[in-house]
Amino acid sequence: MTGRQLHLNAFLMNTGHHEASWRLPESDPYAHVELSHYVRLARIAERGTFDSLFLADGPQLWSNLAQRPAGALEPLTLLTALATATEHIGLIATASTSYNSPYNLARRFASLDIVSGGRAGWNIVTTAGKEAARNFGLADEPPHAERYARAAEFLDVALKLWDSWEDDAIVADKAAGVWGDDSKIHPPRHRGTYFGVAGPLNVPRTPQGYPLLVQAGSSEDGRAFAARYAEAVFTAQQTLAGAQDFYADLKSRAARAGRDPAHLKVLPGIVPVLGSTEAEARAAERLLEDHIVYEHGVDRLENLLRLPAGTLELDGPLPGDLPPESAIEGAKSRYTLVVELARRDRLTVRQLIGRLGGGRGHLTFAGTPEQVADRIETWFTRGAADGFNIMPAVLPSGLDAFVEHVVPRLRARGLFRTEYGPRQTLRERYGLPRPANQYLTPAVS
Amino acid sequence: MTGRQLHLNAFLMNTGHHEASWRLPESDPYAHVELSHYVRLARIAERGTFDSLFLADGPQLWSNLAQRPAGALEPLTLLTALATATEHIGLIATASTSYNSPYNLARRFASLDIVSGGRAGWNIVTTAGKEAARNFGLADEPPHAERYARAAEFLDVALKLWDSWEDDAIVADKAAGVWGDDSKIHPPRHRGTYFGVAGPLNVPRTPQGYPLLVQAGSSEDGRAFAARYAEAVFTAQQTLAGAQDFYADLKSRAARAGRDPAHLKVLPGIVPVLGSTEAEARAAERLLEDHIVYEHGVDRLENLLRLPAGTLELDGPLPGDLPPESAIEGAKSRYTLVVELARRDRLTVRQLIGRLGGGRGHLTFAGTPEQVADRIETWFTRGAADGFNIMPAVLPSGLDAFVEHVVPRLRARGLFRTEYGPRQTLRERYGLPRPANQYLTPAVS
Ligand SMILES: Cc1cc2nc3c(=O)[nH]c(=O)nc-3n(C[C@H](O)[C@H](O)[C@H](O)COP(=O)(O)O)c2cc1C
Ligand SMILES: Cc1cc2nc3c(=O)[nH]c(=O)nc-3n(C[C@H](O)[C@H](O)[C@H](O)COP(=O)(O)O)c2cc1C
Repeated sequence: MTGRQLHLNAFLMNTGHHEASWRLPESDPYAHVELSHYVRLARIAERGTFDSLFLADGPQLWSNLAQRPAGALEPLTLLTALATATEHIGLIATASTSYNSPYNLARRFASLDIVSGGRAGWNIVTTAGKEAARNFGLADEPPHAERYARAAEFLDVALKLWDSWEDDAIVADKAAGVWGDDSKIHPPRHRGTYFGVAGPLNVPRTPQGYPLLVQAGSSEDGRAFAARYAEAVFTAQQTLAGAQDFYADLKSRAARAGRDPAHLKVLPGIVPVLGSTEAEARAAERLLEDHIVYEHGVDRLENLLRLPAGTLELDGPLPGDLPPESAIEGAKSRYTLVVELARRDRLTVRQLIGRLGGGRGHLTFAGTPEQVADRIETWFTRGAADGFNIMPAVLPSGLDAFVEHVVPRLRARGLFRTEYGPRQTLRERYGLPRPANQYLTPAVS
Repeated sequence: MTGRQLHLNAFLMNTGHHEASWRLPESDPYAHVELSHYVRLARIAERGTFDSLFLADGPQLWSNLAQRPAGALEPLTLLTALATATEHIGLIATASTSYNSPYNLARRFASLDIVSGGRAGWNIVTTAGKEAARNFGLADEPPHAERYARAAEFLDVALKLWDSWEDDAIVADKAAGVWGDDSKIHPPRHRGTYFGVAGPLNVPRTPQGYPLLVQAGSSEDGRAFAARYAEAVFTAQQTLAGAQDFYADLKSRAARAGRDPAHLKVLPGIVPVLGSTEAEARAAERLLEDHIVYEHGVDRLENLLRLPAGTLELDGPLPGDLPPESAIEGAKSRYTLVVELARRDRLTVRQLIGRLGGGRGHLTFAGTPEQVADRIETWFTRGAADGFNIMPAVLPSGLDAFVEHVVPRLRARGLFRTEYGPRQTLRERYGLPRPANQYLTPAVS
């Protein structure tokens, strides 16, 4: 292993990322709320020497019950349970800056980092939609810009809390009866627009210092936030050219923010549908499409596009007069991606739903293991990706197939590790340095 | 096993409940933030067929670093990790109603209940002190009455969220493409004084319905709250007579609230210091006292009594003009207990600190295993306790000694289980019924 190395993240979701996956004979429709399902997935991913596991999240019920498996285990809870069932793999939980308080969330990630021996990661999201807002005393979602302003202040406070103990604050002098050195404790005493947090944190500094910071918003505000804070970025990209643009943009933003661009990893999502021949892969994809309930897809699309119920016709095109991204207060970049995909490929609403059914806007790719490995190598070597967010259409079988058939090819090409290094933290695995404590950074003279 | 059975809860704290325990040669001064320490304790408790484990909590640093091991793993995180390392034992986490939001906390407890197969419990606290308040944007703690009013509304909302899925809401009809029945979902649509929560929860109803509800405030407001919501109550009691009064009071309050008093278990705390002879036990106790740093004790006592720093003299009595409990906005019942203890036994400040060093106001009892078993039996059979909160002065050795030497005596007397029943939930173990779903309670005609 000498050349630049790929990073692979396993995005675990229910019985798979395809919305109809639960209807396949092989799928357990209760799996998404059973620990054993995730233990099995985590062990498959660890067998494939993946960098990390990832769980999405929102503090609301995402869909009605008729459509598909609803509800979930809270991600930090589930990943804590998985920490004890695995040894190496990173554990990335999504949590919202809009609907948490910095003190509580900073403690929880610090605790997971300790319990897992330095394997915690945080996918920082601002949470679109009024459904979540209404679970926290608000009538509607705060404006997009305000959500990102709050996210930035949240990060500033959380970073101070994680640094509020110096690494060597514990003295443990039994004879003198002195356990720790209070001069190495730095309460943030933060008073800002959204938060007042005196501190210090009640958890010592953790193996990684703090969790790996991951981000997944691609709007202008989202990119600016990523350039400043994120060490890894998840993104939905439909074309090589689009992914290259995004990659170049984020790297140059990081550089402009005074950071080493290599310390910001870009990971587009891919929904691989594997077959031992192309025809088999296509058939697997068609089988999934045949199980889509299109009426549900219409509801969800109207929701994403912020259209009144009943606007869309299944066999017609999208309306021509959709508002620009700037008028959308929800998930801005996902909105644009979906509209552009429909326009570019002249899709009817039905076809669009079929395309989104697999990965909600992520690149779906049906093919042989060789073809999938080729696609990954191309994006990786042509400036579109530092690695991938692997989003199997069906779980566990799709992850198992990827580990059995694609990972060995990536290894054979020298692109991916063949085993885990001993006792690596998640940040080390992504090739990133352990962060210095901000209270110890020498003042520039 | 025919007669009424004892319940035993293992209250785990750092290297033990005695503040000086960390200074003993046997103690690991880093143990309180290491998962392995707690795994070991949990397994000892499970060997002793304890009902449950319990972790205290506050969203603040409880003491300065010089004094004793500070910081902690966040309890729900730690108990989730312990869920996978144990099979039977209940897992009771403290969490604050003053500094959490109902939606987030309800999800987390529901997730732990699922992950642990129905073993979750919640010690509901209102969190005294300005230190916590200042981590959540407040200048000072809210008044005592307001904290309890918020706690009651918090519980009302959380109970609705936990009931927001009927047990049989999942249909899983693959052929029809219908996963669940939306008519069995009941969003709380709560709008109250402290919270607005639309709901429903995004977790299905759990094995227990919701976590075992535990409470530990003994003030008038605390007792009223317990009578209404709690299924188990932790309490600090110094005398048999005092414990009997408390027990009778809580049971009659529960009855007056229309509940079966047997469904509210009262568990006083006891700090057993064991020796194979009385003299050995006393020597173990003295060894711990010799390791107390009294200056730190003065700071903490001034804080509890809300006195200015420098008020107390080590070898003098408590001031005669302390305010009545009604003037205290912090931990009311603990305040009264400490003042009464000092007055009753005419203790100097130094002696009081020695007495509090072991259990912060809980009954400390040094003796042989036979004597400890006698004490437990007396309180249990004479209307003072349904069981005990076992708070070893030194951990793990004190828990190990209790399991090796006291538990067999309690078993031999027919007071305590000799093994776990198969697949019991925590609530079943405490002899409590699984709660009905409030949305299904037939209307009284
Ligand atoms: C792979 C991936 C995973 C995401 N996971 C979540 C999630 O779990 N919760 C969430 O609220 N948003 C999630 N998002 C959405 C983004 O965080 C972001 O809210 C969305 O892209 C809109 O942000 P923008 O308005 O900045 O584009 C995810 C996005 C991507 C690409
Ligand atoms: C065994 C026991 C454990 C307790 N654990 C906690 C705790 O973890 N966090 C907390 O804030 N208070 C804790 N308390 C304190 C009570 O919840 C309560 O705040 C305190 O007794 C004062 O309440 P009161 O004013 O109603 O008496 C505990 C009390 C007892 C007896």
